[in-house]
This record gives sequence, structure tokens and C-alpha cells, in this order.
Amino acid sequence: MELLVRYLDRSDSIGSTMTQDSSLMKEATLRDDLRYYFMSPCEKYKARGQKPWKLGVQILKIVMITTQLILFGLNNQLVVSYKEENTIALKNLFLKDYSGVDEDDYCVSVYSQQRVYDSLYYVMDQYSQLGRLTVGPISYAEDEEGRFLPLVICKQFYKRGSVEPSDETYDIDAELEKACMSFNPKTVNQWRSQNSSFFDLDFYRLVDVEITFQLKGINLQTVRSRELPDCYSFYVTITFDNRCHSGMVKISLDTDSISNACRDWKISGTAQKNTHYLLVFDGFIILVCITSAILCTRSIVLAVRLLQRFSRFLNENYNRKVCEDDQREFLNCWYLLIIFSDLLAIVGSILKMEIQAKSLTSYDVCSIFLGTSTLMVWVGVIRYLGYFEKYNVLLLTMKAAFPKVLRFCCCAGMIYLGYTFCGWIVLGPYHEKNYQMNGFPMTDLQKFLLEQKDFPVAEEGSQTDINVGYSTFCCCRRVPENDDIILIS
Amino acid sequence: MELLVRYLDRSDSIGSTMTQDSSLMKEATLRDDLRYYFMSPCEKYKARGQKPWKLGVQILKIVMITTQLILFGLNNQLVVSYKEENTIALKNLFLKDYSGVDEDDYCVSVYSQQRVYDSLYYVMDQYSQLGRLTVGPISYAEDEEGRFLPLVICKQFYKRGSVEPSDETYDIDAELEKACMSFNPKTVNQWRSQNSSFFDLDFYRLVDVEITFQLKGINLQTVRSRELPDCYSFYVTITFDNRCHSGMVKISLDTDSISNACRDWKISGTAQKNTHYLLVFDGFIILVCITSAILCTRSIVLAVRLLQRFSRFLNENYNRKVCEDDQREFLNCWYLLIIFSDLLAIVGSILKMEIQAKSLTSYDVCSIFLGTSTLMVWVGVIRYLGYFEKYNVLLLTMKAAFPKVLRFCCCAGMIYLGYTFCGWIVLGPYHEKNYQMNGFPMTDLQKFLLEQKDFPVAEEGSQTDINVGYSTFCCCRRVPENDDIILIS
Amino acid sequence: MELLVRYLDRSDSIGSTMTQDSSLMKEATLRDDLRYYFMSPCEKYKARGQKPWKLGVQILKIVMITTQLILFGLNNQLVVSYKEENTIALKNLFLKDYSGVDEDDYCVSVYSQQRVYDSLYYVMDQYSQLGRLTVGPISYAEDEEGRFLPLVICKQFYKRGSVEPSDETYDIDAELEKACMSFNPKTVNQWRSQNSSFFDLDFYRLVDVEITFQLKGINLQTVRSRELPDCYSFYVTITFDNRCHSGMVKISLDTDSISNACRDWKISGTAQKNTHYLLVFDGFIILVCITSAILCTRSIVLAVRLLQRFSRFLNENYNRKVCEDDQREFLNCWYLLIIFSDLLAIVGSILKMEIQAKSLTSYDVCSIFLGTSTLMVWVGVIRYLGYFEKYNVLLLTMKAAFPKVLRFCCCAGMIYLGYTFCGWIVLGPYHEKNYQMNGFPMTDLQKFLLEQKDFPVAEEGSQTDINVGYSTFCCCRRVPENDDIILIS
Amino acid sequence: MELLVRYLDRSDSIGSTMTQDSSLMKEATLRDDLRYYFMSPCEKYKARGQKPWKLGVQILKIVMITTQLILFGLNNQLVVSYKEENTIALKNLFLKDYSGVDEDDYCVSVYSQQRVYDSLYYVMDQYSQLGRLTVGPISYAEDEEGRFLPLVICKQFYKRGSVEPSDETYDIDAELEKACMSFNPKTVNQWRSQNSSFFDLDFYRLVDVEITFQLKGINLQTVRSRELPDCYSFYVTITFDNRCHSGMVKISLDTDSISNACRDWKISGTAQKNTHYLLVFDGFIILVCITSAILCTRSIVLAVRLLQRFSRFLNENYNRKVCEDDQREFLNCWYLLIIFSDLLAIVGSILKMEIQAKSLTSYDVCSIFLGTSTLMVWVGVIRYLGYFEKYNVLLLTMKAAFPKVLRFCCCAGMIYLGYTFCGWIVLGPYHEKNYQMNGFPMTDLQKFLLEQKDFPVAEEGSQTDINVGYSTFCCCRRVPENDDIILIS
Repeated sequence: MELLVRYLDRSDSIGSTMTQDSSLMKEATLRDDLRYYFMSPCEKYKARGQKPWKLGVQILKIVMITTQLILFGLNNQLVVSYKEENTIALKNLFLKDYSGVDEDDYCVSVYSQQRVYDSLYYVMDQYSQLGRLTVGPISYAEDEEGRFLPLVICKQFYKRGSVEPSDETYDIDAELEKACMSFNPKTVNQWRSQNSSFFDLDFYRLVDVEITFQLKGINLQTVRSRELPDCYSFYVTITFDNRCHSGMVKISLDTDSISNACRDWKISGTAQKNTHYLLVFDGFIILVCITSAILCTRSIVLAVRLLQRFSRFLNENYNRKVCEDDQREFLNCWYLLIIFSDLLAIVGSILKMEIQAKSLTSYDVCSIFLGTSTLMVWVGVIRYLGYFEKYNVLLLTMKAAFPKVLRFCCCAGMIYLGYTFCGWIVLGPYHEKNYQMNGFPMTDLQKFLLEQKDFPVAEEGSQTDINVGYSTFCCCRRVPENDDIILIS
Repeated sequence: MELLVRYLDRSDSIGSTMTQDSSLMKEATLRDDLRYYFMSPCEKYKARGQKPWKLGVQILKIVMITTQLILFGLNNQLVVSYKEENTIALKNLFLKDYSGVDEDDYCVSVYSQQRVYDSLYYVMDQYSQLGRLTVGPISYAEDEEGRFLPLVICKQFYKRGSVEPSDETYDIDAELEKACMSFNPKTVNQWRSQNSSFFDLDFYRLVDVEITFQLKGINLQTVRSRELPDCYSFYVTITFDNRCHSGMVKISLDTDSISNACRDWKISGTAQKNTHYLLVFDGFIILVCITSAILCTRSIVLAVRLLQRFSRFLNENYNRKVCEDDQREFLNCWYLLIIFSDLLAIVGSILKMEIQAKSLTSYDVCSIFLGTSTLMVWVGVIRYLGYFEKYNVLLLTMKAAFPKVLRFCCCAGMIYLGYTFCGWIVLGPYHEKNYQMNGFPMTDLQKFLLEQKDFPVAEEGSQTDINVGYSTFCCCRRVPENDDIILIS
Repeated sequence: MELLVRYLDRSDSIGSTMTQDSSLMKEATLRDDLRYYFMSPCEKYKARGQKPWKLGVQILKIVMITTQLILFGLNNQLVVSYKEENTIALKNLFLKDYSGVDEDDYCVSVYSQQRVYDSLYYVMDQYSQLGRLTVGPISYAEDEEGRFLPLVICKQFYKRGSVEPSDETYDIDAELEKACMSFNPKTVNQWRSQNSSFFDLDFYRLVDVEITFQLKGINLQTVRSRELPDCYSFYVTITFDNRCHSGMVKISLDTDSISNACRDWKISGTAQKNTHYLLVFDGFIILVCITSAILCTRSIVLAVRLLQRFSRFLNENYNRKVCEDDQREFLNCWYLLIIFSDLLAIVGSILKMEIQAKSLTSYDVCSIFLGTSTLMVWVGVIRYLGYFEKYNVLLLTMKAAFPKVLRFCCCAGMIYLGYTFCGWIVLGPYHEKNYQMNGFPMTDLQKFLLEQKDFPVAEEGSQTDINVGYSTFCCCRRVPENDDIILIS
Repeated sequence: MELLVRYLDRSDSIGSTMTQDSSLMKEATLRDDLRYYFMSPCEKYKARGQKPWKLGVQILKIVMITTQLILFGLNNQLVVSYKEENTIALKNLFLKDYSGVDEDDYCVSVYSQQRVYDSLYYVMDQYSQLGRLTVGPISYAEDEEGRFLPLVICKQFYKRGSVEPSDETYDIDAELEKACMSFNPKTVNQWRSQNSSFFDLDFYRLVDVEITFQLKGINLQTVRSRELPDCYSFYVTITFDNRCHSGMVKISLDTDSISNACRDWKISGTAQKNTHYLLVFDGFIILVCITSAILCTRSIVLAVRLLQRFSRFLNENYNRKVCEDDQREFLNCWYLLIIFSDLLAIVGSILKMEIQAKSLTSYDVCSIFLGTSTLMVWVGVIRYLGYFEKYNVLLLTMKAAFPKVLRFCCCAGMIYLGYTFCGWIVLGPYHEKNYQMNGFPMTDLQKFLLEQKDFPVAEEGSQTDINVGYSTFCCCRRVPENDDIILIS
């Protein structure tokens, strides 16, 4: 920028020693264009009367995208709370002695054989009378022929095994065997007498019991906000986990809920559905975003052309190149941010329209698109603050301090990482269970690692590659003689 | 102030070159008056022996207003705690299996049809034997003819509907129908047999059940603080909320309590009521506030006159105008603060007297008046700290730093806003229910928006207006060439 | 100190122009004494070989006083935990449905008449069979003739009253009447039949029921630490509080426990009691503290004499007075601190010996003496840090910054006070009860104020006095012309 | 370093005034070697093409040691969670009315004699039917002849005693007597009738009841991660603590679990055990660590030799010694850190291999070795950050600021210590029990001190020794005349 400033200044002050008129004219035009390019929207309006269309579009975009996000978020919340409340209701219906709060990553823990049997029978008793129990529009799933899908109980146990803790002897076949049983809610009277042998659990060998069934539900509440109700399939899994063989059976209930448009429906009594208004609104947002992206692209193109003109001029008249700092001045990163955010907003809006039209249910992906785009749009507002002199100081200071902060964080991170590993291994596992162990973010990795312990040797090669990359990254010039001087200054 | 200071200094040093005696005299008087005007109360006392009445009045006011506030607050707390304890007592009386703590924004949640019926019947059973149950002076409300007002149960349901989740089909008339039933505590034996059909709830169609009744209570505890007991009407609403149709019925109890003077009363045994002392105290506060306001107004008037004299003097002798900074020195903002706080205190005290006399019950409005006035009075104390040299530096520094802090907050706010929106949409709804979702401050907005989704397009026009306003606000001069220089300095 | 330093420096440099030999000698001695006086213990040892006795005594004192404090604290904790556990045990024995945790400032709350009666009868049933219930050495108190002291139930109610909430009418005699009944644990079969009318509570008029009884206990656990067991009297008060008449009766249990030496005892089996070792230790501490106090007093006396000599010298030779700053150099505040802490430690140790000998039970007073003394002794260590050059900078900086910090706190305090009052009155009472209201530190004041509302007018006079005092305190010189200059500098 | 820098600089600039060629050559070589020695790995590669082997080894080591630590930690966690879950299961099995959460440092507290008996009998009832109750592979321990080890109940009480709280008299023999009883799960029908006198507890004299038994368990879950199951002995102790005689009996359950290889086992069905992969991995780590240690030792040796050469050169040519600062430059503390961490890692890895081979079970010791080594390795990464110019400033600043921070902490620590002691004695013991008292870190010390109160006098001598040491440490030069100057500067 120095050169540029000097150029603008110098040419301002007195004048030129050039003799060719056309060249003089050319230079004056270039100077004007350059000066105009670096003006704020406000100054442009004062200088050439150009109205700040781009600024207007951006502000309109902020308002519209934020409104859209809020509407989508509220809708999203409805869906999420419906699923969550259903899960809570199912836990209260099917888990005996459920306190209303999960104990840990499981729901209930039981410690005696009788309690295990009670909890097991309770699930089936409740399932068989689901219709009379539940207060929600939920019922058994059916297959194509209209028959209810059965509840399936599977128990997994070591194939063969006799364990004699008193003798400190065991004889185990570590392969797992699985035995399953179906249970039809209509044949409720017979199951317990006919399958008594199935429920004779040998706890020494038992690894887990898994009860799975499928329920269907309808989310009627959306009727009230003038949307069509969705149909849901709930895949419920109740697990009696004895994997640890520690005298504690952990009972947990998981629901996997999938929403889809209902097969057949008839609705009346609501006013004409107003969802098309929303579609128009989404379409308008897409339009605004496209406009904004085009305007920004145009600005970038203009900037590149201006840079080329300036570069040619310098080359012809002074036989100099534009220095890198000045080149960077022409590339406005804000424009790239805005274009990227526009693309995200367009994709997000299309997804939202699809969800509205019930042809998609991927709320999560749409959330990420809309959310990221809104974040960028709001961060982009900072750019306009840069037009205020005082704010500019703030922004430039932040810009200058950023690498230092990053550097410190990196250095502190190293120590923290070492400290964390050391603390985890030395203190970690001895902390109370109900509290910290579950908070440790490695449970999934743990499960994966415990199954296959032989991978580290195999993976060694690839990790060394990473190291080589890191070591080359480390290579940079070092001037140890300067250290003390830096400290003194 | 520069000019003023220079004027005072110069005229101090040696003397005048003026020849007219009267003019000389005039100037000396003006100089004395000006110097006197900018003195602290202490210096005024030393200079002309004037006693600091105004300061005394202010200090008296602080003590009195704070005392009044505390007295009013303690009284207020009695009323609030009476209402709250009554609500807790009603929850414990009417809600089956109430744990003593609300689960969420509702009190109890139930998950099976039987529990819904039990809870429903429980309310009515308890209501019918209220007199034998409650330990407080509370009973049924009566109409004008002395008959007890009945309890009213209303159920709201979709007009017509058959829902078959198994088939993924539904046939719903989204219009709501309402059916109500009255229940008189005296006809307790008949209601269950006569209205059995009403209590045959079709949970698929049921939206909510609302039980409302009205109770009357008397707040006897005020007798002990020598005030007349108030009579209260409690409008109790118990809602069984199945709006979400998620298999979870949320039961909540709300009380709306209105206090009024009792219709007929006779009281004895207390010493003569001492409330008139309090009225005298309030009156005295009003007097002090009026005095304070008058003194401050007088000071402002005197300051304006002095400014006019000074302005005229400068105009006549030096043909100069008083610069804006000096003019501002004459306008003491503290005086305006004090006058405003006095007005608030006067209105608040009048309201308090009305409340004391039982002709008003608007504790809230009075709270705001008295509270704001006390806050201002205490903030006003800072002014007197300005008389200490060291504090003055502190005050001036705070004054100077304020706009910078504000600017930074504004910039950080932008990023925060974007971050919040993004975080809410991406992470928000997936957080655990019992915790964060309820903390989100949009629930009312949400309800409003969900009912009418078509407004954003309609409101677009007005929002664009705001933007235009914002863009004009943004227009200000920008000097990009200075950026680097600012950073360096 | 400037003068002093200059004097020491100047006389160091070359020599004197004095002619009298004796005077010269005198000055040299004075200079030596002065220089010696301002040395650290270490330098004194190097200069004249004086061993740092005073320092040694201080260090010995720190170790001994801290040891003593820990021993006393541990003992104290035993007593406190005995009392607390007894209170918990009594709550569990006498309060029906006590959850183990107090609900609020009360233990249990009940909401129906039946529950009140049940809780009331439960207390008496439990009391009558105390001997068979309790697991601790606790029993009924006896009067002089060996008869058990009875349990006393008192109910307080409005003298006369009929309340008709439905009619919004009441007729109350606000004077309170009290009816009491004694209950002897031996006549257990008769009380309920004979006093049935007493237990016919009219809840409209009932203010509270208070059950008081006295139990005796022996703290046997001290036997294990070779101390004599103490005897305790527990004055138990169970209150059924209906003062608020809000439909909620709050039951609370308070114990007032007083310890005293047992009347008659016989103990065997422990090794000879070792408490006399502790007495010797305490005696030794007193000795050390007296030594320390004497040494410090001596130092102060010597300093005053030295100051007098220096003052006389300056007066005679230079006809000057010692400036105030230099005088202050001679008065060592640390010595005063040490002497004060010694006195506290001596009193505390004597109290501790008395407690040990069971002739006193005022643990609290002794705690305060010993604790304050230990705090001062440790703070006194900072003085010795002042001998290290680097620490000295730290100390001096803290010394210099202290008034500024204080000033800022004072200014912020004003705003905070105003804010607190305003926030309390506007928001305060509407916050949830179970959380913040109880945290508000005015409950005692509140009770006091509610009983007698007429005092503020009466107290006005005295408060005005305070204000006058404050206003005179405010009087200090103000130089407004300097403000801007201060800000600039 | 100054001298060194000057030497390198000077010799760089123009040349030498030396005349001997060999000497000139020698100096040039030395200069080159010195310059090379202080280069970063990157510069070395540029200068002489030497590949950064040492850096590579370090990076490889970081990756491998961290991987090893994670694997070991996950394995360790399995063992710890098995033990913890077993303890929880035993508490739920044997403690009547256990809520699932410990109340304090005890599990359950009971307050009536009946509850004590019930809890006592419950333990034995549950123990006698353990086989039918538990869901885990746990059973009674056996002696060598195959007979079940019995449950042992011991009660401890004062030898003789009659306590009459009502009379305030007691007659106690403070010596403790112990009575025990065995209970065989097979003779379940007889114990209660035969030992009724044993269970006739005299609560006045009772100090505690201790129930101990031994159970055997097998940790089968490790089968799933292809390791051999371990056998465990659980030494269970249930204590009914009446030591405090405060009317509250605290019941607690402690398990001491010892793991060992099972006596006899047969396992099938798993794929071939993959533990040898892990052994190879551990071996490889040991190899890498040895390499790293050797490389670092070699570097230190080279540095010492270089220093000797430089020292000889300076001595011969300039007759000067290498100053201490320069000598320190040659001693690289990082190398010592790396070597120490290597040794720890080698020991840790060997321990880990032993544990894997089931010949050791000391997880804790191994944890400390591996953890400390990993911490050091990660901290060692900071060294490489020193090669970046900017980071170096950071490191040097931290190095310079460290003593000041330490000094401030020391000074603040003094005040804090005094404050803590004072606060503890004055406020401490009156805080609520369930919260702070248990958090105080002196409980063990307390127990120790309460048994033998006579030690402080005896220990006095040794503590005075410490003081003498401290006082000599305090001796250092003080220049009080400089204080003001320091403050000003």
C-alpha cells in the first residue's frame, strides 16, 4: 500500500512532468478510478452520486436470512421436542422403577436376579397392553399384510461356560451365541408358559438381553401450525447389559425415530394452507443471494482489471512492478466471504424448501448450511464497521494481535496436551463413577480400540508419514544470535 | 472551559486597562460570581459563609428515601411470599404425586391413561373436601346469592378424527371443539355416575383438559404488623396438556391472585394502628423532594442567568461568543438527574400512600418508581465524590473511556449475535430437555410465530425501512490512507 | 527519610568541619547507632556479632502458635460435630417424613390438617418411647427430685376470630392467646384421651404450635482421645408455624445445646491422662509471647530514645527539627502488630487452658482470640520478606497502590449500593422461593422492623447526626482548574 | 554468551592478525564447529546436508509413547470400572435402604435401634442367599479344604459402663472389648436362635460393629478384548459406626479388591490371542527410547568436547577463561530432560509388558512411569518451538518472568496461610455437615493427632532446627537506602 499511497499523494501535490496529453489524461483517469475504488459507499455517493446498491442488498440479506433462520429453528425445535418427549414417554412406560432421570449413560441399574426378571417381564406386560396405556397416538407397526410386527427378545451368552469363582477356575468358550424369541401382543396369554425355558437365564454366561420392537406414531401438533402431520417410525431397543459381569445389569432404552410423509391422510377444518407464502419467501431469499453474489463477483472482476491497468501503467512509465502488499490491497477477502456465504444460503434455502414440501427430512444438514451462512453474514457486518475510523483501529489491532495469540495458544496447547495425558493416566480412572469418567471424550474410540488391539503396529507407517510432514513444516530459519537482542528491545 | 479559565486567570493576575469605573465594577462582580458559582459547597462556606443547605437536603433525602424503600420492600415481600406459599400449598393439595418441585415449566408429567384419570379425579376429590383439608383460611368463592361457584372442567379436542399410526393414515378435522362440565362441591356423590361419558377421554383427539375454579383467601399475617388483612381471590387453572401428542401429558397449575380490601371486617385487640406515622413519614419525604427539586431548579435558573451575563459581557467587551464547551460547563447534568429523581420519588411516595390506604394494589408500579428514584439518588452521590481531587480523575477517566468501551461492545455484539444464531440452529435443539431449551428467551415469540407463519413476507416492508435508516447512519467519512498511520501511532 | 538519608550520606562522604572533639565523637556514635538501628538482623550479626534473638523468638512463636491452633481446632471440631450430629438424629427421630435434608429454613412443610395432626402425634409417640428408639446415650432430663421433666406443648392463637373467606368478611381479635399442656412420658396411655379437646385445632385462628422438651446427653467419644466426657443439655423446640396462614404449615426443629462438666463420674481403663502435657505446652507459648512482647517493647523504647537523641543533635547543631516523615521512620508499626498479637495469644492460651480444665466452655471466644493472633503472626512474616530487596519493591508498590484501590472500591460501592436497592425492590421479591430470597441478608432486620414500624420517624434525629458528620467529612479543598491538567498528565 | 557472540562476530568481520597457518586453520575449524553446533536441525541440513535424525526419532517417540499411553489407559480403565461397579453392586446388595448415592463418607445413616438391627440382619440374610441374588460371577471364598470361609461379625464396646444422662453421671471403663461371631451361609437356620444374646446390643457401650467377609469374582469382560480373565478377591468390610455416640449410626461398606491370575482355566473360541503384537509394539518403543537416549548422550559428550576445545583455544590465544554464562550455553538442559524421560519410558514399558503377561498387577506404578514420561515428551516439544524466532521471545519472556511470579506467590501464600488458619478456627467447624468439613484436607492428620496429643512438646526440638535453617536462609544483604529509588525508577 505504501507505493500506492505515495503514488496517489505525489500525483496529487503538484503535477506531472509528462508531455504527452493522452498519457496525462490516462493517468488522471486511472488516479480517479483508483481513488474511487478505495472509497466507502458513502463517499462514492458523494463523489459520483452512485447509490449504495451493494450495501442495500447486504442489509436486506441480513434481515431476511436471520428471519428465515429463526423460522426454521422454531420449526426444527418442534420436531426435536416431539422426538425427545416420545423417548421420555417410552422410558416411563417400559422401564420398571424408572426415576425420570437417567442414572448415567444407562437408564436404570439393577443388582439382583429377581429384579432383572421383573424388569424383563414388565417390558412385555406393558407392550402387550400398549393401546390401553399410552396417551399419545402411537401403536404397533404392521407388516404389509396388516399383521402386527412382533417384539423380539434376543439374549447373547458365551457358548459354553462354567465359572467357579470360589475355586478360581473357569472354563469359557468366548464365542458368543444368540438366541431369540418373538412375542406377539395378541398371543399374550401363552408366551410365559410356552417359553419358560427361554427366560431361565444363566447369569454367569449371559452377556446381554436385547428387546427390540417397532412403533408407529403421528406428530399431530403440526396441524395447529397449519402444516401436515408427519408419520414417525420408532425403532425401540431396550438393552439389559451384563457385559461387564460386575454384578450390575445396566438397562437402557434407545429410540431411533425416522419421520416420513404419512401414507394416506385426510385433513379438514384448517384455513387454506399458508405454506406457499413461506416458499415465496425462501425463493426471494435465493434471488437476493444470487444478486449479492453477482455484485460481489463483478466487484472482484473490476478490481482485477483495475489492478492490471495500474500494473501496466507502472510498468510503462516507471518500469516497476506493483509490490505484493499493494496487490493484496486489491483482493478484498470480504467479497470472497460474502460469495461463500451466499452459496451456503442458496443451498440451505433449497434444502429448506424441500423439507417444507416433505420430500426431504434432513433437518441437520439444512441447519448447518443455514447456520453457517447466517454466522458469516453477521461477521460480514464487521466490514462495514471498518468504514468508521475508530472501529478501523480496533479491527487493525485485532488483525495484528491475532498471530501472537495463536502462537501462544499453540505453545500452551502442547503443555496442556502433555498434562492431560499424564493426568488422565495417573489420576483419571480412579475418580468417582456417576461424574467424570463419562465426560471423557474417548468412549467411542475406546470401544473401537478394545475390539481390535493389533492396529497400532499396522498404523505406524501412516503416522510416520504425518511426522515427516510435520518435520518439513518445522524447517525455517533460526537466528539464535538475535535472541538476546530481541529480549532487550 | 479554556476560555473561562483564561479569563479568570488573566483578570486575577494584574488588573485591567479599562477606564470606566462602572464597567470595572461590573467585571469584578461578574468574576466573583463566576468564581463562586464553580466552588464546592465547602469553599462556598469558607468564602461567603453560606451554609450548604442543598447538600444537607440531598443527604437527608438519601437517608429517607432508602429507609422508605426498605420498609416498602419488606412489606412487598410479605405479600409476594403469601401468594407464593399459597400457590405451593395449592399444588400440594390438588396435584397427585407432586414431588414439591416443578419438573420443568410444568409441575407433573404422566404417561399412562390410568394416571391421567387418577390425577383428574384426584383434583375433584380434593376440591370437594377442601374445608377439611386445608390449613389456611381459604374457601370456595360465592356468587351474589351466596351459592358456591362451581369448578369447571373443559376438554378441548379435534372435532373429528381417527388416527391409525399402524397404517400411517389419519383423518383429522383440525378445528377444535370444547366441552365443559360444572362440578358443585355439594353434589359430590352424583357427579361421577352422572357424567361418566364426559370422562371417557379419546386421547387421540384430546388436546387439553382445563380445570378452573376460584377460591377466596384472607392474608391474616398482616394483622401482626398492625395492618388490615387483605382479601384475595385465587383463580386456579389446572391444565392437562396433551397438545404435543407425544405420549406425555403435562399437568400444570397456575394461580392468578388478586388482592382487594375485604368487604366487611371487625378487628380488635391491636394497639391503635400506627400506619399514620408512616403516612407522615411519606409526606415528609414528598416535602423534602419538592424542596430539593426547587433548589435545583433555582440553581439551573441562576446558572442560565449567569451565563447570559457572561455572554453579554464577552460580547460587549471582546466581541466574542462563549464557546460551546464553556456553555456546557454551565449546564449541570447532575441537577437534571436530581430533579428527575425527585419527581419519581414524589410519584412513588404518593402511590405508596395510596397502597397503604388500601385504595390501590399496584405494588409493581410503585416498586419501579421508588427503585429507580433510589438508584438515581445513590448514583448522584458520585457527584459529591467529584469534589475530592483524586476521585475527579477517576470520574473523568471513566467519562473518557466510555465511548471506546461502547464501541468495542458493539463490535463484539455483532460477532456474538451471528454466533448465537448459528449455535442455536446447529446445536440448540439437540441439547437435553430438563436444562437449556427452556432457558432460551423466545418461547413467547415462538408461540406467536407458530400460529401465523405468513407474516415475514408482510413485514418485509417495514424491516427494509429500518435498514435504510441504518444505512444512512452508516454514512460517514472514511480516510483509508490514515489507517497505517493510526496503527503506528 | 530524605533528611535522614542525606545526613547519613553527607557524614559518610568526607568529614566534618566541626572543631570540638567531644561533639565529633558524639556525632560519630549517633551516626553508628542510627545506621545500626536501620539494619536487618543479618547485617546486625555481621556488623556487631549480635545474634538475632528477636527473629528466633518470632519464628519459634509462629510454629508454636500454629500448632496450638491446629490442636485446638481439631478438638473444637469434635465438639461441633457431636452437636450437629445430635441435631440431625433428633430431626430424624421426631419429624415424620423427614427427608434428611431441610427444605428451606424449615425442615418439613405440610399442607393438610390430617398431616399436621399426624406430625404432632408422631412427636409425642416418639418421645414416649425415646429409650427404646435412640442409639445414643441420651435420655429425659430430670428435676432435682429425680422426676422426669415433661414435654410441653403450647399453641398460640388469635383470641377470638371468625373468618369467612367466601364472604370476604372476618372478625378478628388480634391479641394472641396461649394454651399449654404438659406431657409426661410415663403417663403415655392417658394423654390422648384426656386432652382430646386440646388437640382440636382451629386452623383459622391458630398461629403456631410449639413443642419444647429437654434431653440430656453425654459426649462419650472424648474418652477415646483421653479427655473426660462432657455432659450436654439439649433444649429441643419443635415449631409448627402457621403464622403466614398461607395453607402451608412449616415444621422446624431447633436444638440449643449447652455443655457442662458431668455431676458425678468414674472412669478407668485409660492410660494416665496426658492433658498436663498440653497445659505445659500452652504455658510455654504464654512464656514465648511474653518474651516477644517484652523484646518488641524494648525496641520501641530504644527507638524513641534514639529519635530524641537525633532530634536534640539536629536542634543543637543545625537548629532544625526532625521532619514528620523521618519521625515516622522510627515508629515501627510491625512492633505494634506483634505486641498486639502477643496479647491476643496470651489471652487465648489462658482461655484454652481453662477450657481444657473444664472450667470454661466458651470455645467461640477462644477461637476468635487464637485465630486473630495466628492471622497476625503470619501476616507479620511479610515484614521479614521486606529484608529481601525484591520483595521490598512489591511491598512498597502495594503500599502505594492501596489508597487508589480503596478509592475505586468506594466509588463502585456507591453505584452498587444504589443498584442493589433498586434491583431488590423491582426484581427481588418475584424470584423463586426454595433459592434467592433466603439468601438475602436482611431476615433478622426484617423481623425486627415488621413488629415496630414506627421507629424510622423516631430515629430520624440520630441519622441526621450521622449525615452532619459525613458532610463535614466531605469538606476538603477542591481545585477545579486543575482537573484537565491532571487528566492530560 | 556475550563473549561467544563477540568472538563469532569479530572473527567473521575481517580476518586475523595471526601469522601461524596451522593456528589459523585450527581457529577456522573451531569457528565452523561452534557455528554448526548452535544451528537448528534445519540449518544443519542446509549447511552440511545432515539429515535431522535426532528430530525424527523424537517425533516418532512422541507418537508411539502417546499411543502406548492411550492403550494402557483404556485397559486400566476397564479394570478400575470393574472394581468400582462391583463395589456399587455390593452396596446395593448388602445395605438396606441404600439410595444409590453415598450420604457422606458413609453410605447410610440410621437413627433408631430397630433400624440398626434390621440393617444388621439384612446383611446376613442377603449373604446367606448370595448365589440366588447376584447377577455377577461372584461367590463365597473357600479355604484349602474347600469349605466356605465364614462371615465374621465383631462388635467392639467399652468393657464396663453405665451411663445415666439424666443424672449427669457415668461410670466407664474406657478400654475396648471385642466379641466376634462366625456365620456360615450353610447353617442359615440356626444362627439367629443360637446367637440371640450376641445380637442384644447395649448401645450405650457399643462403639462399632464390623462385618467382614471375603468374596471371589472373575472379570470375564476381558475375554472380549482377547485377554485372559483375571480372578479377584473382594475383602468386604461393613462397619456400623457408633464411635461418636451422637444418636446416629453410620453404616459404610468398603471393598478391598486384589486381582491375581486364576488358578485353573480353560478358554476356547477366541481367535489366536493378539497380545504378542502389543508386546512387539512395546519392545519397539523401548528400542526407540534407547536410540533417543544414546543420541542425546552423544550430543552432550560432543558439546563437552567442543567446550574444552574452545576453552583451550581461548586460554592459549587470549589467556582468558570461558565465562560461566557461555559455559552454560553448552550444557543443553533439554537433552537431560529427554534422557530422563527416555529412562522413565523404558521402565514403564517393561512394567507394562509384565502386566500384560499377568506376572505383575501394579497398574499404579506403571501409570506414573508412563504418564510422567509422556508429560515430559510433550513438554519437550516446546524446545522445537524455540527454533521459531517469535516463539523464542515467548519462551525467554516466560523464563525471565518466572522468578517474579514465584516471589509474588510466596508472599501471597503467607497471607493466605494465616487467613486460612484463622478462618478455619473461627468459622470452619460451624459450617454445615453433608458439604465443607469433609473437604478439609486434614482428616487423616486429625485421626492421628487425636490419638496421641502429647507429641507437640516432644517434637519441638526438631521444629526449632527447621527454624534455624530458615533463619540462616533469610540472611541476605539489605540496602534500605535504595528503597525509595527503586520505587521511583
